[in-house]
Amino acid sequence: MAKRVVIVGGVAAGPKVAAKLRRLDQEADITILERGKFLSYAGCGLPYYVGGEIKEYRELMETPVGVLRDPEFFEKSKGIRVYNHTEVVKIDRKGKMVEARNVNTGEVFTLPYDYLVLATGAKVSFPPIKAVDLDHPGEVSPRDLGHVYTLHGIEDAEAIRWTITEKLARKAVVIGGGLIGMEMTESLVKNGLEVTILEVLPEILPILDEDMGILVRRYCQSQGVNVRVGEKVERFEGQGGVVKRVVTDKGVYEADLVVVATGFKPNSDLAQRAGLEIGETGGIKVDMFMRTSDPFIFAVGDCVEVENLVCGKAAYMPMGSLANKQGRVAAINIAGGHEVFRGGLNSVIFKLFDYTIARAGLTVRQAKDMGYEVEYALVPAPDRAHYFPGAKRVVTKLIADRRSGRLLGVQIIGPGDVTKTVYAVATALYYGGVVEDLSSIDLPYAPPYASAIDNLCVAANVLRNKLEGRMVGISPHEVERKRKRNEEFILLDVRTPKEYQSVRIPGSTLIPLGTLAQRLHELPRDKEIITFCAVSLRGYEASLILRHNGFTNVKVMDGGISCWPYELEK
Amino acid sequence: MAKRVVIVGGVAAGPKVAAKLRRLDQEADITILERGKFLSYAGCGLPYYVGGEIKEYRELMETPVGVLRDPEFFEKSKGIRVYNHTEVVKIDRKGKMVEARNVNTGEVFTLPYDYLVLATGAKVSFPPIKAVDLDHPGEVSPRDLGHVYTLHGIEDAEAIRWTITEKLARKAVVIGGGLIGMEMTESLVKNGLEVTILEVLPEILPILDEDMGILVRRYCQSQGVNVRVGEKVERFEGQGGVVKRVVTDKGVYEADLVVVATGFKPNSDLAQRAGLEIGETGGIKVDMFMRTSDPFIFAVGDCVEVENLVCGKAAYMPMGSLANKQGRVAAINIAGGHEVFRGGLNSVIFKLFDYTIARAGLTVRQAKDMGYEVEYALVPAPDRAHYFPGAKRVVTKLIADRRSGRLLGVQIIGPGDVTKTVYAVATALYYGGVVEDLSSIDLPYAPPYASAIDNLCVAANVLRNKLEGRMVGISPHEVERKRKRNEEFILLDVRTPKEYQSVRIPGSTLIPLGTLAQRLHELPRDKEIITFCAVSLRGYEASLILRHNGFTNVKVMDGGISCWPYELEK
Repeated sequence: MAKRVVIVGGVAAGPKVAAKLRRLDQEADITILERGKFLSYAGCGLPYYVGGEIKEYRELMETPVGVLRDPEFFEKSKGIRVYNHTEVVKIDRKGKMVEARNVNTGEVFTLPYDYLVLATGAKVSFPPIKAVDLDHPGEVSPRDLGHVYTLHGIEDAEAIRWTITEKLARKAVVIGGGLIGMEMTESLVKNGLEVTILEVLPEILPILDEDMGILVRRYCQSQGVNVRVGEKVERFEGQGGVVKRVVTDKGVYEADLVVVATGFKPNSDLAQRAGLEIGETGGIKVDMFMRTSDPFIFAVGDCVEVENLVCGKAAYMPMGSLANKQGRVAAINIAGGHEVFRGGLNSVIFKLFDYTIARAGLTVRQAKDMGYEVEYALVPAPDRAHYFPGAKRVVTKLIADRRSGRLLGVQIIGPGDVTKTVYAVATALYYGGVVEDLSSIDLPYAPPYASAIDNLCVAANVLRNKLEGRMVGISPHEVERKRKRNEEFILLDVRTPKEYQSVRIPGSTLIPLGTLAQRLHELPRDKEIITFCAVSLRGYEASLILRHNGFTNVKVMDGGISCWPYELEK
Repeated sequence: MAKRVVIVGGVAAGPKVAAKLRRLDQEADITILERGKFLSYAGCGLPYYVGGEIKEYRELMETPVGVLRDPEFFEKSKGIRVYNHTEVVKIDRKGKMVEARNVNTGEVFTLPYDYLVLATGAKVSFPPIKAVDLDHPGEVSPRDLGHVYTLHGIEDAEAIRWTITEKLARKAVVIGGGLIGMEMTESLVKNGLEVTILEVLPEILPILDEDMGILVRRYCQSQGVNVRVGEKVERFEGQGGVVKRVVTDKGVYEADLVVVATGFKPNSDLAQRAGLEIGETGGIKVDMFMRTSDPFIFAVGDCVEVENLVCGKAAYMPMGSLANKQGRVAAINIAGGHEVFRGGLNSVIFKLFDYTIARAGLTVRQAKDMGYEVEYALVPAPDRAHYFPGAKRVVTKLIADRRSGRLLGVQIIGPGDVTKTVYAVATALYYGGVVEDLSSIDLPYAPPYASAIDNLCVAANVLRNKLEGRMVGISPHEVERKRKRNEEFILLDVRTPKEYQSVRIPGSTLIPLGTLAQRLHELPRDKEIITFCAVSLRGYEASLILRHNGFTNVKVMDGGISCWPYELEK
């Protein structure tokens, strides 16, 4: 008899389970239940629909040859039954049935299953913000004020786009400087809006370390965005039912459009009500086969908790790419195969104007919190041979465990090719690689694509120099702190006089590398000396010369002047 | 006492040894002996100097901040002695001395060493071609005819560029359809020359399999290049000392510029004369520490033989990126450290007009020659979300061992982002990964950079379907052979009628996937059926429906119509 498989959720992971299962089992009786109207759409493309790069939201629901993935498509070309506008209200695990309700008609029906798949996705995490409408006394719900949006589904994206195209907004406030907040910022700026980002944390992009976050913030500011960090939103003020101002603990921002992008959490309510085990992150707990605590119920996508492969800890990684992998695994196992999902690397990539920002693994902050003894390299370098036309800068931060040399993570930002590097590091992290591996891997080389010593190889070599004690680093942030506290130290710039004249760090001392050996007497032996250059390769050479000549308190400033986000003299 | 280290060769690997050694050992007495005039230049950038993208060859010899790496630079800023125009004529291993000769003055001198490093590079492999000058009786040397060039050093590049800028050439023949031949072709075409490529093998680019090579050839032809394969050059004909025609076994080609790009071989003559062990590839044999058979002599760069990490066999991989890695390893070991070079993956990437072409590991042909039982997937797909503006096609060929599932190699071509994929696969090859890994690795995803199911993940999934018996593939080449032999089979196109009307394979039968289950009676059960679509995903689904319904002789054409390089009807 045909297996009856019921899938709850039709956006990403659900349809993947259905399609893969159909390929494996031509007889299975497959049903998708989706609460919303739309099926199988690319949620990650929504910011680009808002921005206008993607003209019709339909495009997010089409196959590569332009066929719409609507219920009829699933029915006709795949033999998969779809009920949209239908939510599941209850799971009867003992009877192996779900109770479903059409949200338009209120009609209730039950469906029996041999296997149930929960693909209920994520829900918006909305912070506790008060709201008032100056035309009406008392508080209102912040979500009820006009032109206050989140970005979850197609309907949200349509509403924001409508506000833009109808020219109802001129000033936008984006609440939350995370991934979605940044993608939305780009879309709004490109549509001519003045944008303010409000981030409650000390730096934007908590998926990065702060030293990388500040570089992105500086870039974002250079694109005309007002970025405010360490500010907590307290209140929305509206007038005539529409938002007018956002009030924080530090200021007041006019706004006729507000996007709340403060993250997502797993939508595991249905699973919880059914008594399935929920993990510490709030996601549904699953084993490597994507089975929940009930062996006849699988869960996939943004509603589950997964393992972070780098540290083995439970994690929440709501990513369309992982949802697809999990869907495949669940389908194979339901079909009687044997397939595992090992976990994720918390890999992220996104576009911000002309920058690409990517990361994988753990940040320094995360790694330290977990008890790792952390070392890292910060390397600015061109993305291809520096002499090749069009070469663009990227900054790579590579992170490892001091004790074992094991790779822990990577962060890469800049206008250049970031993708290649994060693909290689994610792969190395998957295999549990060590820093030395990245010095050794034969990555292909030609001047239009890489330097003869690839950025990643450079970063690995710098990191090994640190791990093996040949180099002691100090972050720009730490140097700035010393400067602000008026601590005594020499900030030794070893670039050429020409480079120094064009731009320099206030208070730095210039001794070009080529003359250093002859000018050692100019340097005090009792003070800390911090060397740097453009990217801190010459800075490293200078530190070696100093140490060889008996200077004991010598450090190299990570990333050189290229990664210095503070005051500069020109 | 300071270690005396003598380095023979100053282009790539030699200076790397010197620079790294200086950082590790401030006392070492380091000397570089270079036969040519120029030091430490980016040889891989020469085609772009010829093409004019790089304006001055000086740029190939500058540090990222514009400092020229001439003998004075090495002397002053690194304390490294350089003798250019100086060749080493003899190694006295017993006395630990080299005999050197200034090629300009003829002056001979000896230098003692504690460690000697051979970085003697590669030499041009020039095929046996006859040459005549119609103005003079008898044969001449083909290399003595004017406007016949190879591309080895800066002087070669200068000469070719001069021929172009002085407008002395209109028609060029490039002999050899390999990597350098293709890069030179682009440079010549961009400078307005008519170019013919003559390749003696049945297909260009023997670093790829023929099914990928033919796709590149078609593209190259679409750019106006005359590409002739399977043609052997027999004779150059000159007039007035300058080349005029290239005569092959099949035709005569007018040419006022000829570039011979038929490869390189290791320049291991000096090592051989010194009695050092030479490998089967002709390269100097080294251990993992880059030591030759004499423990006081190291060898690095294009003169050595390395291990192919995928198969463990000896190989010749003359690549600037490997030279740098080897240089680092040799320097660390000379300085008393302990560092290994494990081998290479034969990773290659290059640019051809708007295409990028990359590979790593073994080709199907190479793998079969070594006795592997080979399976592969051929997957055409966009390089980012198909709905994202600017998405470009790439074709990925992923190769594995049937018995173990171990990854053997990858080839990727197209106008899209090829780099990310080859970086990930090279990394996986380094770790000895299996196909399943590439289905599992959490590569980062956002619509501007990838599809939710990354190309590489798709390729791995297709390959697993084949390895696990769910899909039987057949190459376009094999299908074309069947067609030419008038074998009986059904070539079943399961795309939409609209797609079929726009372009189709002659003799194919259209049954759209959505109607296939209802139209099975139209298909004969005794004939082989080969299904396909645009990329062969729907083709695969069709094969599953057919097999489920009792059709036993069903295959899927690899890559669909997108990878079909033969006749098409429009």
